[in-house]
Amino acid sequence: MVGQPDAIAPYLSAADASLRSRLRVVAAETVIPNDAKPSHAIRNSRGSSMRIALELVKRGEAQAVVSAGNTGALMGLATLLLKPLEGIDRPALVTVLPNQRKSKTVVLDLGANVACSSAMLVQFAVMGAVLAEEIVGIPAPRVALLNIGEEECKGLDNIREAAAVLKTTPAIDYIGYLEGNDLLSGKTDVLVCDGFVGNVTLKTMEGVVRMFLSLLKPAGDKPRSAWWLRWLGRWIQKRVAKRFGHLNPDQYNGACLLGLRGTVIKSHGAANQRAFAVAIQQAVQAVQRQIPERIALRLKAVLPKSD
Amino acid sequence: MVGQPDAIAPYLSAADASLRSRLRVVAAETVIPNDAKPSHAIRNSRGSSMRIALELVKRGEAQAVVSAGNTGALMGLATLLLKPLEGIDRPALVTVLPNQRKSKTVVLDLGANVACSSAMLVQFAVMGAVLAEEIVGIPAPRVALLNIGEEECKGLDNIREAAAVLKTTPAIDYIGYLEGNDLLSGKTDVLVCDGFVGNVTLKTMEGVVRMFLSLLKPAGDKPRSAWWLRWLGRWIQKRVAKRFGHLNPDQYNGACLLGLRGTVIKSHGAANQRAFAVAIQQAVQAVQRQIPERIALRLKAVLPKSD
Repeated sequence: MVGQPDAIAPYLSAADASLRSRLRVVAAETVIPNDAKPSHAIRNSRGSSMRIALELVKRGEAQAVVSAGNTGALMGLATLLLKPLEGIDRPALVTVLPNQRKSKTVVLDLGANVACSSAMLVQFAVMGAVLAEEIVGIPAPRVALLNIGEEECKGLDNIREAAAVLKTTPAIDYIGYLEGNDLLSGKTDVLVCDGFVGNVTLKTMEGVVRMFLSLLKPAGDKPRSAWWLRWLGRWIQKRVAKRFGHLNPDQYNGACLLGLRGTVIKSHGAANQRAFAVAIQQAVQAVQRQIPERIALRLKAVLPKSD
Repeated sequence: MVGQPDAIAPYLSAADASLRSRLRVVAAETVIPNDAKPSHAIRNSRGSSMRIALELVKRGEAQAVVSAGNTGALMGLATLLLKPLEGIDRPALVTVLPNQRKSKTVVLDLGANVACSSAMLVQFAVMGAVLAEEIVGIPAPRVALLNIGEEECKGLDNIREAAAVLKTTPAIDYIGYLEGNDLLSGKTDVLVCDGFVGNVTLKTMEGVVRMFLSLLKPAGDKPRSAWWLRWLGRWIQKRVAKRFGHLNPDQYNGACLLGLRGTVIKSHGAANQRAFAVAIQQAVQAVQRQIPERIALRLKAVLPKSD
């Protein structure tokens, strides 16, 4: 637990002794502000909690970093300190979304790279496939590119070029283009896109889900309805919330920064206690399944062939 | 009604005489296939129903075209025949979405232009503002750019450049960047993005809405549940469908191709009868409110100042 001791102490003193005995506080002098410009934050990162935590991973004193801080600074500092794997140009932010087929879909990039070359999209496909195998447990995951149509001629140049490479990469089960409406349909196990589109898509999906969950709450505009109607309203809400619970964004908090020589998890800045615990679990899983090592192995097997 | 008479006749013969007397069938020899590559379709468009319909508008014999056909071909042919307004580089596809504040949000571009210059984004902002005023009835519509963060430094170059221009355009009430989760929040009246992002975003939203609506249907896995549970399930479904009905994609079918010297409405290819009627209503509204003429006027007032 890296941070300013004065800020951490009040929370720790309220915690169980058994918990405290398993925690070590590493003091940091500063904290990178959430609204800092990443380039500026990185230049002035010495002594900051984020940098110290990443250095612990670099030196092998910690196995993973979980941070709810400045996304741009975390990506920049992690890339600087932990270095990309061989064959990776830039790391990608990835998450595992629930889908309609009661399985899960790996989606990347979610915003680490606003513009992506076709080579980067291919690298994302490889990394996503490893994650789907190791974390979701799908033996030969299907990989698709997010596009605005399913025909070959559709979309941007980098997407069409990545499709051409993936088609001739036997180690990847590439199934073609999918559109936005298939984000949760489960038609693919891995969905690849650039960071701008991925970020907007994920946030759109979360916005609609949260709106539905809020609309399901009993309407506040009929306070004088009969007691049994109000009771029924609450009953309906519970029933529906149960059916939609797995779509609640809190359930899949924590995007993994994939492609580095270490495990870095980015939690949503507004995560509550439960959501942050999910992000920590993701870090544990990534370390246990040796995700960085497995990606490095797969890259060696796949990427030379695509040149 | 332009098309192959043999294909139209069976439907017309079943219709009321009062309806038939208001319809005129204009014969076309061919139909542009849905899966045709747009460039190829346009080169071979002579005699096709789509081209003849657009030529009727060009000659002033019809006031608007509504088509559920090949999107790329419709955009290309419409631009070729009806020409962009002065000050418009390329037309944009626009729709009017319901939002959480019980108002409506104008969103563009939805896929007419996969890549957009900053000048095009500014033109979209002007066209969207006119539509929000004339169709939604908002006197001074707020205009936002879709981005991956609200800070000024975020996003792609073309978006940042468009923001700089919009900020100094007094005729536009530019309120800054919004993220994907604000698509339906009603924080803005006009949301501007490039056609790739807009298409993916809209389809993601529709996919999630349709998934929710399908999840609200009574579960089919409990056929032996008590009659009153099944009755309650249907009651809940009706109640919730009523609350969410305005979000059903059928309710806002029909994207307007904005920026041309004529009115062109693109219906969803899979639109049902009700959804197609909505698209026709949109065409009527666009003609009645003289949308192309009003956009031309606004462009004259706004665009020179931003140069």
